[in-house]
Amino acid sequence: MHSLKKPLIVVNFKTYIESTGEKAVRIAKYCEEVSQDHGVGIVVVPQIPDIFRVASSVKIPVFAQHIDGAGAGSFTGHITAECIKEAGACGTLLNHSERRLLLFDIDSAVNAAKKAGLTTIICTNNIAVTSAAAALSPDYVAIEPPELIGSGIPVSKADPEIVRGSVAAVKKIDHKVKVLCGAGISKGDDVVAALELGAEGVLLASGIIKAKDPMAALLDLVGKI
Amino acid sequence: MHSLKKPLIVVNFKTYIESTGEKAVRIAKYCEEVSQDHGVGIVVVPQIPDIFRVASSVKIPVFAQHIDGAGAGSFTGHITAECIKEAGACGTLLNHSERRLLLFDIDSAVNAAKKAGLTTIICTNNIAVTSAAAALSPDYVAIEPPELIGSGIPVSKADPEIVRGSVAAVKKIDHKVKVLCGAGISKGDDVVAALELGAEGVLLASGIIKAKDPMAALLDLVGKI
Amino acid sequence: MHSLKKPLIVVNFKTYIESTGEKAVRIAKYCEEVSQDHGVGIVVVPQIPDIFRVASSVKIPVFAQHIDGAGAGSFTGHITAECIKEAGACGTLLNHSERRLLLFDIDSAVNAAKKAGLTTIICTNNIAVTSAAAALSPDYVAIEPPELIGSGIPVSKADPEIVRGSVAAVKKIDHKVKVLCGAGISKGDDVVAALELGAEGVLLASGIIKAKDPMAALLDLVGKI
Amino acid sequence: MHSLKKPLIVVNFKTYIESTGEKAVRIAKYCEEVSQDHGVGIVVVPQIPDIFRVASSVKIPVFAQHIDGAGAGSFTGHITAECIKEAGACGTLLNHSERRLLLFDIDSAVNAAKKAGLTTIICTNNIAVTSAAAALSPDYVAIEPPELIGSGIPVSKADPEIVRGSVAAVKKIDHKVKVLCGAGISKGDDVVAALELGAEGVLLASGIIKAKDPMAALLDLVGKI
Repeated sequence: MHSLKKPLIVVNFKTYIESTGEKAVRIAKYCEEVSQDHGVGIVVVPQIPDIFRVASSVKIPVFAQHIDGAGAGSFTGHITAECIKEAGACGTLLNHSERRLLLFDIDSAVNAAKKAGLTTIICTNNIAVTSAAAALSPDYVAIEPPELIGSGIPVSKADPEIVRGSVAAVKKIDHKVKVLCGAGISKGDDVVAALELGAEGVLLASGIIKAKDPMAALLDLVGKI
Repeated sequence: MHSLKKPLIVVNFKTYIESTGEKAVRIAKYCEEVSQDHGVGIVVVPQIPDIFRVASSVKIPVFAQHIDGAGAGSFTGHITAECIKEAGACGTLLNHSERRLLLFDIDSAVNAAKKAGLTTIICTNNIAVTSAAAALSPDYVAIEPPELIGSGIPVSKADPEIVRGSVAAVKKIDHKVKVLCGAGISKGDDVVAALELGAEGVLLASGIIKAKDPMAALLDLVGKI
Repeated sequence: MHSLKKPLIVVNFKTYIESTGEKAVRIAKYCEEVSQDHGVGIVVVPQIPDIFRVASSVKIPVFAQHIDGAGAGSFTGHITAECIKEAGACGTLLNHSERRLLLFDIDSAVNAAKKAGLTTIICTNNIAVTSAAAALSPDYVAIEPPELIGSGIPVSKADPEIVRGSVAAVKKIDHKVKVLCGAGISKGDDVVAALELGAEGVLLASGIIKAKDPMAALLDLVGKI
Repeated sequence: MHSLKKPLIVVNFKTYIESTGEKAVRIAKYCEEVSQDHGVGIVVVPQIPDIFRVASSVKIPVFAQHIDGAGAGSFTGHITAECIKEAGACGTLLNHSERRLLLFDIDSAVNAAKKAGLTTIICTNNIAVTSAAAALSPDYVAIEPPELIGSGIPVSKADPEIVRGSVAAVKKIDHKVKVLCGAGISKGDDVVAALELGAEGVLLASGIIKAKDPMAALLDLVGKI
C-alpha cells in the first residue's frame, strides 16, 4: 500500500469533459504542484482510460475510479487490479454512489486490490453502510450522503453527525480503517471542518474540476490546513 | 468511422495476464506486423487501461472491450466514448457475453459511439438477438454462441447454421450492418469457413492470446485467406 | 397466447400503496366491470405477490410486471414464467423503464413466456429500441418515452411522431407484433389519439391508480372509444 | 418481528418445478406437520408469486426469497416489503448467492423490512462478507460458501471453520444477530453439527425439495435435534 499523507485530498475527475484526456493530465499537474508546494497529500482519480497517461506525467498518487472483482482471465470489459496497477495506479475508489457494487463484488475487489498492493477507498452513503464497508477492511471509507454530491453544500456543515457517527462506527469495527468525507466539499473551510469531525481527509470532484479556475480552487482548498 | 478491411480479424485481449500492460503492447505489435505483411485487417482490443499505451505504439485500429452509455458528466467509473477516443481507440465491442448490457444501454452506447466517430461491434448469442442488435444500426454484429467461447470448437464448424442464419437475418433488418463470427475460432481454416458462410470476419481471443506462440498462431490464422 | 381485444388497455399497478394487496383486488374488479360493460379489453398488472389473489378474483387477463429469463431450477428470488402462470397470470410486461433488462434476458424471457403460453409486452424508450424489441418477436411492444411517464402529458400529444414511427418501424421488422403506447396517458382522448396514430392500445398506471376516483378515471378512459 | 424457534430450519423452495404453485403448498404442509409434531421451527421460502397461497394454507412462517430496497411508489416489477407482508410473508432472504444485491440495496431492503415488521436473513459467502452483513443489523446472517450449494457436502463438515469464524465475527459486530449456515445441508447430522459450531439453524433447499421423499427427508433432518 502506498503511504498517504494526512490530511488527504482525493480529487475524483468523474467523466467531466474538463478532465478528459490531455485535460486530465493538466489538472493532475496542478494537483501535483499544490501537493508539493503545500505539503498536502493529493490523490488524483482520472477516468480509467486516462490512468496511464496521467500516471506517466505526475508523481502524486493516481487512483482508479472503479475496479471489478474479476481478476486476470476470460473476462471482457472488466477493470482488474493488475491492469490498473500496470497502468500506474496505486489505488482505487470502490462503490461510488454513481457506480454502486454488489456486496460480494466489493469484497472481491478489496481482496484483488490488496493482492496487487493497491490502496482502497470504499464509498458509502450512511452510517450503517459505512460500518459494513469497514468490516471488509479497506484502507479508507468515504462517507458521501448522495443528496449532497455536487450540491455545493458541504456534508461537514449540512450533516456533521453523519461524519462524526461514521468515524465512531468505523473505529468500533476496525480501528485501522480511516474515514474520508465527501459530498459538497469545495472550500478550505470544508476541509478543516471535516478534519475537526475526525475525518482524515476529503473526497471531492466538481468543486475542483468544474471550477472556473481549478488551480485557484485547489489553493483555496489547502489554504487553511 | 474507421474504414476497416475485409476480412477483418478482431483480437480480444480479455483480461488475460498474457495480454496485460507491456505484454498487450507486444501482442499488438505482432498483430500490426501480420496485418501489414499479409494485407489483412486486424483490430486489437486491449483492456481499457491499456488502450492509451497500445494505441500510442501501433498503427492498426485499437478498440475498447466495452463502453457505457453514459457520456461526459457526473459519472464515476464509467467508460465513455469520448474518453476512449481521446486515449486512441477508434471503436468498441459492446455486450460481450462476459459483459452483457441492458438493451437500453446498448442503444445509448451505440449512439454515443457514433457521435464520437467510433466503430461499434455488438456481440450476440443467437439469431433473434442478432436481429435485435442489427436494429440498433451498429457497424458490426458478432455472433458468438456462448457455449463455444474458449472451447476450441469453431462456431463455423459446430453450428454453421447460426452464422448463415445471422447473416440472413441481419441483411433483412439493415443491409449496412456487417456480421462477424466468434467462439472457438483459432485456425486459418476457421476464418475461411466463416467467410464462406457470409461473415466479414472473425472475433477471437484465447486462440491467439493463450497460444504458446501468438505470432505463429496469427500467421496460421491469416495463412489461408 | 391469450386472445386480447383491441383496443387494449393495460393498467400497470406499479408498487403504489393504492394498488397493493386487497386494494389491488378492488381496482382489478373495477377494471373487470368496465371491461365487461364497455366491451373494451383491459389487462391488469398487479405486483407479483398479488397475482394469485387478483387472478383468483377477476376474469379479465392478469399480467406480471416482470419475469426473469431463468426457468425452473436452482434460482432464488427469480420470477419464472411457469410460476406466474401457475399463479394465474396469462402474460407479462418486460423491460419496463423502471425495470430495464439485459438484451440477453429479454430474449430469454420472451422465449420462456412463449413456452409457457404467456403473452409478452416489451417496453421501449425510442424507435430504435422499439425495432430491436420487435426483432425478438414479442406479442406487443409498448413505446413509452421515459420523460413522459407519470407526467400527465400524453405521448400521443407530446410526441405523436414517436408513436407513428414506432408503428412503422415495427411493421417493417415483424408485422405480427402489435404496438401499444404509454407515458402520460390518462384520458379517453389520449386513447383515441393513440389508436389514430396506429397503436392497438395503451399502457398506463398513475392515471388510474393515483386518480381520486379510479372508477371514474376508467370510465373516462374508455368513454370515447 | 416474528419470534422464531431455535433451532431454525429454513427451507428455500428456489424455482424448482417440484415446489411451484400447488406443489409449493403441499411441501409447505409437510413442513408444517413436521414442525408441529417435532417442535422444531421451520420457515418455508416459496417463490414470490406463491407466497399468498402458501401463507393462506399453513401456519408456519413464510418468507420471501428476495425483496428490493424500493418501497411503495412508481416502481415496476420490484418486490416490496409491504406487498409481501400483505401477501402473508413475515420475513425475507436477502442477497442469496443466486440473487446478489448491491450493498446499498441490502441496507435499503433491511430498513424497508424492519419498517414492515419483517424478519431478515442476509446470505453471505465468507467471513468478511458475514461481518459486513452483520453491521447492517439484520435478524440473521446465513453463511453459505457458494461452491458447496447443492453439492450434498455439508458446510459443517467441509469447512467447519467458516461457520465457527462467522459466529465469532458476527458476535463481535452485533451480538443480537444470529447465524444460520447453509450449503450442502441435507441430514439430521448436518443440523446437529451446525448447532455445535454455534449456528442457530440451517438454510437448505435441494436436500428437501429434490428429495425422492421430501417428508422422509424432513423427518431425517429433525430427527437428531
